[in-house]
Amino acid sequence: MSIYLRNYLSNSWQSEAHVANTLTDPVTGETLATTGGAAENLDAGFAFARSHGSTALQAMTYGQRAAMLGDIHKVLQANRDAYYEIALANSGTTKADSAVDIEGGAYTLGYYAKIGAALGDAKTLLDGSAAVMSKDQLFQSQHILAPIRGVALFINAFNFPSWGLWEKAAPALLSGVPVVIKPATVTAWLTHRMVADVIAAGILPAGALSIVCGSSAGLLDALQPFDVVSFTGSADTAATIRSHAAITRHSVRANIEADSLNASILGEDAAPGTPAFDLYATELVREMTTKSGQRCTAIRRALVPEKYFDAIAEAVSAKLASVSVGNPRNAEVRMGSLVSREQFDHVQAGIAKLKSEASVLYDGSKQALIDADPAIAACASPVLLGIRNADTASLVHDHEIFGPASTLLGYRDAAHAVSLAHRGMGSLVASVFSNDHGWLAQIGQQLAASHGRVHLVSPDVGKTQTGHGNVMPASIHGGPGRAGGGEELGGLRALGFYHRRSALQGSSATLSALASVAANWNT
Amino acid sequence: MSIYLRNYLSNSWQSEAHVANTLTDPVTGETLATTGGAAENLDAGFAFARSHGSTALQAMTYGQRAAMLGDIHKVLQANRDAYYEIALANSGTTKADSAVDIEGGAYTLGYYAKIGAALGDAKTLLDGSAAVMSKDQLFQSQHILAPIRGVALFINAFNFPSWGLWEKAAPALLSGVPVVIKPATVTAWLTHRMVADVIAAGILPAGALSIVCGSSAGLLDALQPFDVVSFTGSADTAATIRSHAAITRHSVRANIEADSLNASILGEDAAPGTPAFDLYATELVREMTTKSGQRCTAIRRALVPEKYFDAIAEAVSAKLASVSVGNPRNAEVRMGSLVSREQFDHVQAGIAKLKSEASVLYDGSKQALIDADPAIAACASPVLLGIRNADTASLVHDHEIFGPASTLLGYRDAAHAVSLAHRGMGSLVASVFSNDHGWLAQIGQQLAASHGRVHLVSPDVGKTQTGHGNVMPASIHGGPGRAGGGEELGGLRALGFYHRRSALQGSSATLSALASVAANWNT
Repeated sequence: MSIYLRNYLSNSWQSEAHVANTLTDPVTGETLATTGGAAENLDAGFAFARSHGSTALQAMTYGQRAAMLGDIHKVLQANRDAYYEIALANSGTTKADSAVDIEGGAYTLGYYAKIGAALGDAKTLLDGSAAVMSKDQLFQSQHILAPIRGVALFINAFNFPSWGLWEKAAPALLSGVPVVIKPATVTAWLTHRMVADVIAAGILPAGALSIVCGSSAGLLDALQPFDVVSFTGSADTAATIRSHAAITRHSVRANIEADSLNASILGEDAAPGTPAFDLYATELVREMTTKSGQRCTAIRRALVPEKYFDAIAEAVSAKLASVSVGNPRNAEVRMGSLVSREQFDHVQAGIAKLKSEASVLYDGSKQALIDADPAIAACASPVLLGIRNADTASLVHDHEIFGPASTLLGYRDAAHAVSLAHRGMGSLVASVFSNDHGWLAQIGQQLAASHGRVHLVSPDVGKTQTGHGNVMPASIHGGPGRAGGGEELGGLRALGFYHRRSALQGSSATLSALASVAANWNT
Repeated sequence: MSIYLRNYLSNSWQSEAHVANTLTDPVTGETLATTGGAAENLDAGFAFARSHGSTALQAMTYGQRAAMLGDIHKVLQANRDAYYEIALANSGTTKADSAVDIEGGAYTLGYYAKIGAALGDAKTLLDGSAAVMSKDQLFQSQHILAPIRGVALFINAFNFPSWGLWEKAAPALLSGVPVVIKPATVTAWLTHRMVADVIAAGILPAGALSIVCGSSAGLLDALQPFDVVSFTGSADTAATIRSHAAITRHSVRANIEADSLNASILGEDAAPGTPAFDLYATELVREMTTKSGQRCTAIRRALVPEKYFDAIAEAVSAKLASVSVGNPRNAEVRMGSLVSREQFDHVQAGIAKLKSEASVLYDGSKQALIDADPAIAACASPVLLGIRNADTASLVHDHEIFGPASTLLGYRDAAHAVSLAHRGMGSLVASVFSNDHGWLAQIGQQLAASHGRVHLVSPDVGKTQTGHGNVMPASIHGGPGRAGGGEELGGLRALGFYHRRSALQGSSATLSALASVAANWNT
């Protein structure tokens, strides 16, 4: 039995249309759900969100909107069993991997409910303090952030149907900006179910949350100058979005998160036997296998001192050998399926491509899948590739394998490691493992210009560090260049995308009247 | 005698090429200077700026770079007489109007030299304080701003050959980012002369400052992922820039300042005879006539209560009647020329277009030009248009006349005034004149979402307020939607465009090592 995923626009569920897409179980191939094609009445839906959703949300204070996020969080908690069932069926993930998406989304919602509550009764945010502009001190300039007067359109990726929605929607709704979510079709079911639960709970005002499933046709055409669009996905689609008249002509703000060839660097001091060495090997395996490597932040390039190349290869291969792959319904399975057979084919093709310059250090595909038919299931086994002399390689810096594969690259010295990391031409995250705090701080600064996040692990935080690939709401998520140039999360920084900064110049008496109804944005 | 404006790239002046463009005196029609066409060796020039300019600049501290800005300021002061001569000849501006550009540029440089000095020995900026990420408080996230590893390309407008360069170059150079300036050809001479003076003074490291005159062909093709481009000009060219693969494919950051239909609102309380009424009339005349209205920030739409429509029309017309127009070499002349005969034709066509929905309240063209041939000179006289019932008009919210013209629009109540202001669909600035501080604060918040700057004038700051159209470096400059969505200046905020924000996650010991060599960005 499959369900049809209806669109929700203008405060009502649209009726079923001609089926255009099918969602399947990536392990069994079974049909789970269907969607229509191009959505109807998009312009009216977006207009309703602006006129009703925006107006109602912006009549509330930050504190009131934060309380709504808390209520949404409760709805998600109450329905979580259903979400795990959907994730298991539609994403083919183990319970631990489903949790990364489901609990990750709920945690981020809860985080914004909490920091939003601290903004209290304000309806405007102050950015910095007033600058004095006249000799008598009376004429001043105070920057503020005012919520944008438009809709936030999210075009999301298949790997995070829950977290991908809420990490964007939480700051948008907290800002008073209505949301239209277009999930990736292949895993749209979980997003759809969550949106339906939240709408049924009657928490949000009419027009605050809409969903379009199936085709994205017409969505960009519905955008107007004060709207924003946030996209997570391929560089090709990103280029199409950026070339649309909404962006080129009407200055619609676009936040893009695209490809990323994240690096992780083992410090020269982190010899085999030191704590940093062990932390590095453990982290690399975790990054390769969590969600079968289907995270934009996963480690694709493992940069290690040439002298430790063999030791790392050995340590990581030994750990990978214990990773069982197959049907996530079987309790013995540690790593489930990729999201689709199409992705499986992409991953295999990517590994084959990199083999032209890399050797295979570990190949998990020699182990049989558990409870899964290799001719049907999209289950990919972990593969560790290696290039001892990194200067001979180029594809590894350019081609992202979105699966459980990573490449070891030998480096000569710290400057060489940093230059190799930069060859990703802009990435979401780089991590560095060392026993030396001063060196970590120094390398961190050098990596910052081409990475949105730099994760520095020393043994004192070995147990408490939040993980190379985990995106925590307190830190920004995004990267320059190839990674798309976007920026999400980062605590209250996330609200910047949904507000417009403006300099209010006036008498200190005028600005005092303003400040009395505002909260501070800067953290 | 005319001079040829050579390009400066890769630390050397290129030889003269085939003449492709001519710069003229807009009052006399005389030829002043020439330029070549498409520049040669752009890729090499940009690569030199990245490898030499960027490296040398980023080896310095913020304090050292700020000192260089101070030295540039001195060079400009030493050569200012030559700049006034060039502006008089090439822009056709009176000394007072030339000062807006020349002294405005120098003031902005001096401002960044001063606030940059306060950053001292730092090489990195801290954005906010560290967020604690683990229960034991040890693992934390500190956001920093790291200078970008690329070139800043400026494609500038004809109306500010001096200020337009320095308001962008000061924050770029302070950030450690090399600059390539492409001035608008028609007034490129002043930019060229200033760049030549600074290069001759030997203040900047090789590759830090380059100039391309004549054609912009190939400039965007030379951009790479970590470069940025900042453009001021028409919405059409902005769309072309945004559609280029550098932006759509490689996430090159683009800052755009395009068209703007700035509004100025007279409060309902500001009856004839009150101080706010007089301040409003004076400001409107100043905005219409300064630089012959050739400022992106000038008042295009004057929103006044219907009941004061006639009184304002009368007060403004009386002031405009005393504005003498003609050759700026004559001391009797208060308003000089537009920048070119082409602009003159655009302005006349724009006035004719708006006359289809507006009546003429004052027409200065009935007065003869002083010392200027109306068949040759690009001297335009001030024109005040009027639409008593603003709801009948649409062109006035859509078509920017880049000259000494403005349109009075009657409004019914405050909500009507704000909705009319928003019909500009995103503007650089709106001003409001009232005797009531509380009301100004309230209207200011409502205008903020669609205006980059809101200028609130009450009688207590009547003498010290910095002017509706004057862009002060302490306040941001830019606006959403039609205005291009960009953001410049705003004190240290300007440095954000030339830095990349990154979240550094690590042990408090690691982050302490980082903080010891950094300064605070937030103001």
